[in-house]
Amino acid sequence: MLHAVIMAGGSGTRFWPASRKNRPKQFLQLAADRPLLRLTYERLTPMVPPEQIWVVTASATVALTREILPELPPDNVLGEPVGRDTAACVGFAAEVLARHDPGAVCLVLPADHVIGDEDQFKLAMGAGVRQVEENGGLLTFGLRPTGPETGFGYLQVGDACRTIDGHQVHSLSGFVEKPDAVTAQGYLDQGDFLWNSGMFAWKAEDLLAEIDRQLPLLGQGLRRIGDAQGTGDQAAVLAEVYPHLPRISVDFGIMEGATVRWTVPVSFPWSDVGSWPALREVLPSDDDGNVSRGRNVVLDAGRNVIVSEGPVVSLIGVEDLVVVATSDAVMVVPVDQAQKVKAVVEELENRGWDDVL
Amino acid sequence: MLHAVIMAGGSGTRFWPASRKNRPKQFLQLAADRPLLRLTYERLTPMVPPEQIWVVTASATVALTREILPELPPDNVLGEPVGRDTAACVGFAAEVLARHDPGAVCLVLPADHVIGDEDQFKLAMGAGVRQVEENGGLLTFGLRPTGPETGFGYLQVGDACRTIDGHQVHSLSGFVEKPDAVTAQGYLDQGDFLWNSGMFAWKAEDLLAEIDRQLPLLGQGLRRIGDAQGTGDQAAVLAEVYPHLPRISVDFGIMEGATVRWTVPVSFPWSDVGSWPALREVLPSDDDGNVSRGRNVVLDAGRNVIVSEGPVVSLIGVEDLVVVATSDAVMVVPVDQAQKVKAVVEELENRGWDDVL
Repeated sequence: MLHAVIMAGGSGTRFWPASRKNRPKQFLQLAADRPLLRLTYERLTPMVPPEQIWVVTASATVALTREILPELPPDNVLGEPVGRDTAACVGFAAEVLARHDPGAVCLVLPADHVIGDEDQFKLAMGAGVRQVEENGGLLTFGLRPTGPETGFGYLQVGDACRTIDGHQVHSLSGFVEKPDAVTAQGYLDQGDFLWNSGMFAWKAEDLLAEIDRQLPLLGQGLRRIGDAQGTGDQAAVLAEVYPHLPRISVDFGIMEGATVRWTVPVSFPWSDVGSWPALREVLPSDDDGNVSRGRNVVLDAGRNVIVSEGPVVSLIGVEDLVVVATSDAVMVVPVDQAQKVKAVVEELENRGWDDVL
Repeated sequence: MLHAVIMAGGSGTRFWPASRKNRPKQFLQLAADRPLLRLTYERLTPMVPPEQIWVVTASATVALTREILPELPPDNVLGEPVGRDTAACVGFAAEVLARHDPGAVCLVLPADHVIGDEDQFKLAMGAGVRQVEENGGLLTFGLRPTGPETGFGYLQVGDACRTIDGHQVHSLSGFVEKPDAVTAQGYLDQGDFLWNSGMFAWKAEDLLAEIDRQLPLLGQGLRRIGDAQGTGDQAAVLAEVYPHLPRISVDFGIMEGATVRWTVPVSFPWSDVGSWPALREVLPSDDDGNVSRGRNVVLDAGRNVIVSEGPVVSLIGVEDLVVVATSDAVMVVPVDQAQKVKAVVEELENRGWDDVL
């Protein structure tokens, strides 16, 4: 049976002041009037019923997740006591799922991406799922690059194997880390590199077998956690074992060394909304190139990114600024310096202003 | 007996989003952690006891005024049903005061100015008060100009008459409206022009006599209001009469045509805090030229004016901006375009966003 696993464990400070310690990006209404997590869920419901949708998130945000996704059975929200990177995350979900449904096929997706064409998305995901259902192995979806991006890792496609619903399935040659600009341009020119999207498909049992083979300590830990599921020890074992799981990404810890691996190149409009300026990719702009969420007034101002979680934001005569307002914090930064928001968060930590962290 | 009258009737939109319809500038904490009105009151208490300090404000802000100045007898806060410019305002106060204390001498001051040297202020005010106590007539304090300002009206000094505590008393030649830049430079060069500060001294009876002579309709209206004071009709008569009082400034309605008129040139540090950028004149700046009120974090940013009524404001990499934040509204505007805030307020009115007006 097909299950969807939403990875909602990310934290991060790039969306301060909207994001806070216990309300990271995936819980924010960045692209619409619902949180990114909710949009991801709604994107899946045409393919999978709620009982087969699972979310892995931090323990601290389990309650918030259940609030945002009231349709999910409460047990479908899995809380990680601490973050241990994505290999542990997908392993945890596969362990729980394999015991719940031994034939489980998993479609694994980040909670915080925005996708512009849901029909294309559904077709592409369907093709990947069918490939692993019929052939086993681990499959990753790769985005056809639209530019020489240096902010993403890449994956190299191998031979084409078959076509499903207009989508080619290739063998996967390997992963490469974020390139420099020249290398990225080379990847683009070469034509057989894709952006690493972090979207996967596999049978739970196949993933767990690869974990046992490549990361035996992770496999042992997961089995202890799985054995305790549904017993009175469940929470205690999770809290004891999880912090000691190996900390590695699924790409480099599992996919890179997997025996059978596939990739489906996809080309739907996609954004990982990596920073405030990325909202330009996912929100419509006004005639002056401003994009905004929330109530605002803009006079003689252009190309700004304006986000409000409540306050009315008025911009006059300014250009290329990111302005974000919540009821208790405001940030103003030029678009091309938006990465410095991390330094602000550090400074807030230094000052002990915990009320806005 | 000396009384102080604080004119706190101003409304205005130049300090949005901090100022609102029922919380104009004089109620804001712009220069310190107390409202401008409170600072004005505290500046007067070394000269006049609270029972002899009076405030004229809008009916809608009487309660707020009493809250900010709990030391005042409640009846010392006079509420104007509508604003009818300064001639009506000072006349209203004089009418009430003359009936309360027939020999009342009034020192009349705007609620929303910032003065940097309270000792100098006290000496100068004392000189003006003594002049009208001993000689009658209407007296205005004029600021020695420190530059060719085009944002103020000017007054021209006449002959020097005497010196009191180091302050010269001159006859007053007349008032002139806000000049253009060339004219303002001429005034500065000529040396006998002062900035019109809106600070006055007179005996209540002398002001009322000038009102009767020059603005008889105002005099009649004030008398009806005065006759009703302390009766059950007080509020009803005020509400009926006040909206029909002549609408004219004290400068042009009374001072300009007064029979006996004086001016005392003063030179203490002074600001009428006419706009957000004027906070540069009254707040200390950091090493990068930023001035601020409220919690903020500034990184690689200089010469900004930052005001928060609660939210933590963070500025990164921006210069010469005014950023103002309240819990429900935020404004960002370059310092040299700050006058456009009025256009934002108009737009908010057009949209019917009354919650932030």
